[in-house]
Amino acid sequence: MGIKKEKVIYIGYFCIIHNLPQILKTPNLSSLHEFSNTNSISLVHPSHNSYLIFKMKKVKDFLYKPSMTTEEMVDAFGNLGYQAIELKEAQKVFLKMKRENCKIFLTFTSNMVTSGLRGLFAQLCSMKIPNILVTTSGSIEEDIMKSLGASFEISSFHADDTALHEKGENRIGNLIIKTEAYMKFEDKMAEYLTLVYQKHKRISASELLHEIGILISDENSILYQAAKNNIPIYCPGIADSSFGFQLYMFQQKHSDFIVDTIQDMQRITTDLSFDEKKGLISLGGSISKHYAVFASLLSGGLDYAIYMTTSHASSGSMSGATTQEAKSWGKIKDDGQAATVNGDVSITFPLFITSSLDKMGKEGLLK
Amino acid sequence: MGIKKEKVIYIGYFCIIHNLPQILKTPNLSSLHEFSNTNSISLVHPSHNSYLIFKMKKVKDFLYKPSMTTEEMVDAFGNLGYQAIELKEAQKVFLKMKRENCKIFLTFTSNMVTSGLRGLFAQLCSMKIPNILVTTSGSIEEDIMKSLGASFEISSFHADDTALHEKGENRIGNLIIKTEAYMKFEDKMAEYLTLVYQKHKRISASELLHEIGILISDENSILYQAAKNNIPIYCPGIADSSFGFQLYMFQQKHSDFIVDTIQDMQRITTDLSFDEKKGLISLGGSISKHYAVFASLLSGGLDYAIYMTTSHASSGSMSGATTQEAKSWGKIKDDGQAATVNGDVSITFPLFITSSLDKMGKEGLLK
Amino acid sequence: MGIKKEKVIYIGYFCIIHNLPQILKTPNLSSLHEFSNTNSISLVHPSHNSYLIFKMKKVKDFLYKPSMTTEEMVDAFGNLGYQAIELKEAQKVFLKMKRENCKIFLTFTSNMVTSGLRGLFAQLCSMKIPNILVTTSGSIEEDIMKSLGASFEISSFHADDTALHEKGENRIGNLIIKTEAYMKFEDKMAEYLTLVYQKHKRISASELLHEIGILISDENSILYQAAKNNIPIYCPGIADSSFGFQLYMFQQKHSDFIVDTIQDMQRITTDLSFDEKKGLISLGGSISKHYAVFASLLSGGLDYAIYMTTSHASSGSMSGATTQEAKSWGKIKDDGQAATVNGDVSITFPLFITSSLDKMGKEGLLK
Amino acid sequence: MGIKKEKVIYIGYFCIIHNLPQILKTPNLSSLHEFSNTNSISLVHPSHNSYLIFKMKKVKDFLYKPSMTTEEMVDAFGNLGYQAIELKEAQKVFLKMKRENCKIFLTFTSNMVTSGLRGLFAQLCSMKIPNILVTTSGSIEEDIMKSLGASFEISSFHADDTALHEKGENRIGNLIIKTEAYMKFEDKMAEYLTLVYQKHKRISASELLHEIGILISDENSILYQAAKNNIPIYCPGIADSSFGFQLYMFQQKHSDFIVDTIQDMQRITTDLSFDEKKGLISLGGSISKHYAVFASLLSGGLDYAIYMTTSHASSGSMSGATTQEAKSWGKIKDDGQAATVNGDVSITFPLFITSSLDKMGKEGLLK
Repeated sequence: MGIKKEKVIYIGYFCIIHNLPQILKTPNLSSLHEFSNTNSISLVHPSHNSYLIFKMKKVKDFLYKPSMTTEEMVDAFGNLGYQAIELKEAQKVFLKMKRENCKIFLTFTSNMVTSGLRGLFAQLCSMKIPNILVTTSGSIEEDIMKSLGASFEISSFHADDTALHEKGENRIGNLIIKTEAYMKFEDKMAEYLTLVYQKHKRISASELLHEIGILISDENSILYQAAKNNIPIYCPGIADSSFGFQLYMFQQKHSDFIVDTIQDMQRITTDLSFDEKKGLISLGGSISKHYAVFASLLSGGLDYAIYMTTSHASSGSMSGATTQEAKSWGKIKDDGQAATVNGDVSITFPLFITSSLDKMGKEGLLK
Repeated sequence: MGIKKEKVIYIGYFCIIHNLPQILKTPNLSSLHEFSNTNSISLVHPSHNSYLIFKMKKVKDFLYKPSMTTEEMVDAFGNLGYQAIELKEAQKVFLKMKRENCKIFLTFTSNMVTSGLRGLFAQLCSMKIPNILVTTSGSIEEDIMKSLGASFEISSFHADDTALHEKGENRIGNLIIKTEAYMKFEDKMAEYLTLVYQKHKRISASELLHEIGILISDENSILYQAAKNNIPIYCPGIADSSFGFQLYMFQQKHSDFIVDTIQDMQRITTDLSFDEKKGLISLGGSISKHYAVFASLLSGGLDYAIYMTTSHASSGSMSGATTQEAKSWGKIKDDGQAATVNGDVSITFPLFITSSLDKMGKEGLLK
Repeated sequence: MGIKKEKVIYIGYFCIIHNLPQILKTPNLSSLHEFSNTNSISLVHPSHNSYLIFKMKKVKDFLYKPSMTTEEMVDAFGNLGYQAIELKEAQKVFLKMKRENCKIFLTFTSNMVTSGLRGLFAQLCSMKIPNILVTTSGSIEEDIMKSLGASFEISSFHADDTALHEKGENRIGNLIIKTEAYMKFEDKMAEYLTLVYQKHKRISASELLHEIGILISDENSILYQAAKNNIPIYCPGIADSSFGFQLYMFQQKHSDFIVDTIQDMQRITTDLSFDEKKGLISLGGSISKHYAVFASLLSGGLDYAIYMTTSHASSGSMSGATTQEAKSWGKIKDDGQAATVNGDVSITFPLFITSSLDKMGKEGLLK
Repeated sequence: MGIKKEKVIYIGYFCIIHNLPQILKTPNLSSLHEFSNTNSISLVHPSHNSYLIFKMKKVKDFLYKPSMTTEEMVDAFGNLGYQAIELKEAQKVFLKMKRENCKIFLTFTSNMVTSGLRGLFAQLCSMKIPNILVTTSGSIEEDIMKSLGASFEISSFHADDTALHEKGENRIGNLIIKTEAYMKFEDKMAEYLTLVYQKHKRISASELLHEIGILISDENSILYQAAKNNIPIYCPGIADSSFGFQLYMFQQKHSDFIVDTIQDMQRITTDLSFDEKKGLISLGGSISKHYAVFASLLSGGLDYAIYMTTSHASSGSMSGATTQEAKSWGKIKDDGQAATVNGDVSITFPLFITSSLDKMGKEGLLK
């Protein structure tokens, strides 16, 4: 038997679906609607998940006004929908981290350093926003290249890669690093390592990056600002990339030179404490994200976490691993607060951080 | 034979890779570098793709300053990287559309109307930014619900859906529409259709939406603003959703009432001309995107196109179909300019449109 | 205070994290391990979600053996991980649909008809696997083109689209439809519509597709097999695409010819019943997916649902809408069973359906 | 001026669009069609991209037949569409690698070892399919856990993570690792490292993994099969994860124990040669993918590459980096052949490898 047509005409489909047993006893439409409205309230399970208990926030129409600041925009995002709401949530979680004086991890991948986010990361270090950085060897070498004056250029996702290759232009998405930037980097690295070697034969990766950082003089360099502000940079995969290759070439001549990545596990675990609050801002995935959450796990888990990524959970990858999944491990505490913003970090992070810093300024949280 | 170690130590890997034949003849490192730099320039194929001929734009470090406007942010995006650059490109394409007085399509899907973008779309109509809208039946019904005072609420992507169902709360991502909003909509639709039926027995979908639009009095309603500003709304899939169901129920009582979706093909093709310039802003995918590009194809193709979507090209879907692919069809002209921004429209569109409107204001393009 | 090193050395980090209070009282490692194993069991909340109550299924190492069938592969998928498990789940859900004699919806988008899945959909109709089809106008026109002998060709995602355009080759992902295929389609459509018009002046979309279906003689045609096996094809967006354009051109000469998409809402709702079991296989998203779940909602919701898509839930789109979200609407019953397989349908669907049909054959479920 | 209706009726839109100038001179429909067909051929630019020159491959309807093998399915994929075609392409590229006796890299991430792919990777080593492995520390520790009898369990993407945490169950997507598996691993690692330390004080990561591999006796262990078949495992990020933590704890007691990840750069570069052909199968992204392509770059670039991933190129990440982009770096040779399959590796890899091994068997390429 299908839907009885004579009923359908009068009462509308949502009544049918949601209140079928009642319909049979309901004499007319107006009383049904009344019934249903009341019903709707009485059906709330007061003990359900937190979002059901509290008064619900409403969607608000977003309206343009001239010269909107990013802070005003992200405020409006809180009532807009989908990832816009999640971005506003990330801001809220970040402000809590700062108000509670958390020790904050910032992790990122090398493609972000290829991009103009590199200067922003350095600036955040100069403002003492993060307390610990975790990144990849690619990030390190590109930060150094840029400190040596290399210009990275803008190309296209659909570039002719064979032509680029002939020209010595190496593409990363819609950006380009010239081969000559690697050459200058290689020369400089030999110089840096010679100086470091005079002081240390066996050195942890984070100490090595500190030693190089103090040799750089570029306000926009992540290594420089991190060193200057005593922010350790962890790089468990330092053996990879051109940076790793330079270490290897130096070791060929100085076989007693050892970069000990294992030592850093001691530093990162003793740096952290069960007693202090901990927060994480993880941009993208990779070994950087994993090393930070693992170190947090070792000292009792994160109180706050923000994940910004383009990956999804469906394949079980680290890049797409959710803040929820992290709770099963104790990587985030059971009552820890977390936000995940899905989208390209080149857009979401500047929007998130500029609006958050504006708010921090108003709350007197900027030093 | 592997890499000869004694060479590797001296010259670095990028030299080896990119200039192997030359290495053999190169007496020392400094001359090699000199050679390579020159070489790099001489290898440019002057006839290659345009992005190779023109002076390249450089990546610039993004830096925070207080109270940044979205216009300043999107300007900085132009030198940042990845999708940030593409968003700036979209702005450039949009400004060209406006400077050249293009006829502009705006297409969107119903989830965006569920969100706070609904008010923005209405406002853009009031500013006569788009000339033609294409959307789905879900968009129409939710715009009407909101005009009737329904409040849409904010929930969570991880809500307890069985509990929501008991409460008469219907989830779309992290948003919620209450069942009672559908009930009010159903009552009002009967009223609207009765009025329309007095004037028209056979009506095209776009005329029907115009007739309903003039009955709504809500400044934030898309239907209202479109009707008021003579912007046609095409909705080829009008038979779907609760809106379609109401049409069916009305037709049960008035069998001579016909909503003729075919007729709109005539209107949209006669509205457009081979001689005028045409632009498209497509948000998300679906039948809305396809109907707009198809109509454009019928009058010679688009001069400008902006796609904002979370989908990728890999599965051949309409949502992920690229602006490049559109050229094979003539949907976009061979010399047409296009930008694709990958990401959630709830973030990318407000950023794109507020920054663009600020620029239009300065250029005197806002009426 | 960080981790106390002397402890760490002896007990390992996972002990610390998960059993910190106990560690202080635990005399030695072996007893700790014992404690922890016991503990692990006693901590189970017996009232928690079903997957926690029942004996857990284990991951099994997947091993190659020669000439593996797809049935054997999908069986192994059940213990493999990630989307492989979900694909096996989809098979289980499908077999339940068939054992319980559900009325089964199959929905798909036009890009799948562009691909070789077209023949498979037709074959499934000939085997009476689905009871109802829902698709887009693009699917219809391409099925007809292929029935007229048009050959669709294989190209590349990175084709030169301007060159293709010159050649009259229209790209969809890595496939191509030649413009001449559209020409033959247009001629034939005029012929078909003339024949249909002799019988019907006002016709629903599903009746129109049935009438055309019986005019086609191609065993691999979806329209032909659907018509022959009395499987209705719903196409709420029939006004779109070249198919819609042909309807419009025919209407220009025969203004009393009406394709009434609203009428189909009656048919689909009367076809379905609250009393019978209903299942859905939704491939991709779009209006096709929505129309099917909406129609199901009207008759009490789905008992079983399988979603195969490349989209994710993060942007609130219909394509990415989850089976979980569907429960909040009553689109899927609270106790309904569902599986979502994330991935390209060109790979996941053939694997799913061939392995399922093999199983059905063994169970005597194939007619 | 819109489309002239009287023309449209007769000639159809595709004619108009693609041959507008000719239409004006074309007397009637049949001659237009003739003209257009001829035209279509004469417009081919014979010098265009290779896919345009050669006779095009056609889409073929995929049809079910009982007991289809995965080899038959992947053969059919070659004419199906979208990622199915790309998967067949990957098979072709792989068979070329094998026929030309390439040195083959296989890279994978730890989530794949969590899954049942672990046994398959071990089996491939026993069959000497790859010559070099690159992976992460997470892969190593989970391979060892499984060799110690740990059972990994199947859960749900939507598990209650707080409940899991209480139970000592750590979630990765829809899989679970019990905390007790880590405990057993930690005990065993102390034993393994003590044995290794007796032989080596300073050891490279790949040598360490070889030494541990020979201590394992589990036919399904990757480390065991790699060691037995002299396949080096590179793990540049060995300092991460529980494995890295165990190295650190051992180093606390034996400060002269050094795992030198830099040394492996020498091994991998001397293992490879400019003269031999090189191929890569990269599953997922991460440091593993990067280390392999970087090492290949150092010896002249890859001749063949297969990327299987869920990531897209849009954010410039390593996971989504395309084989095309790799050519700009020389990571893949200009004339190198490559295939990218987008999708979850748990589905695509077993399908790819079982069908390829069947083909290799028939060609006598299996030893």
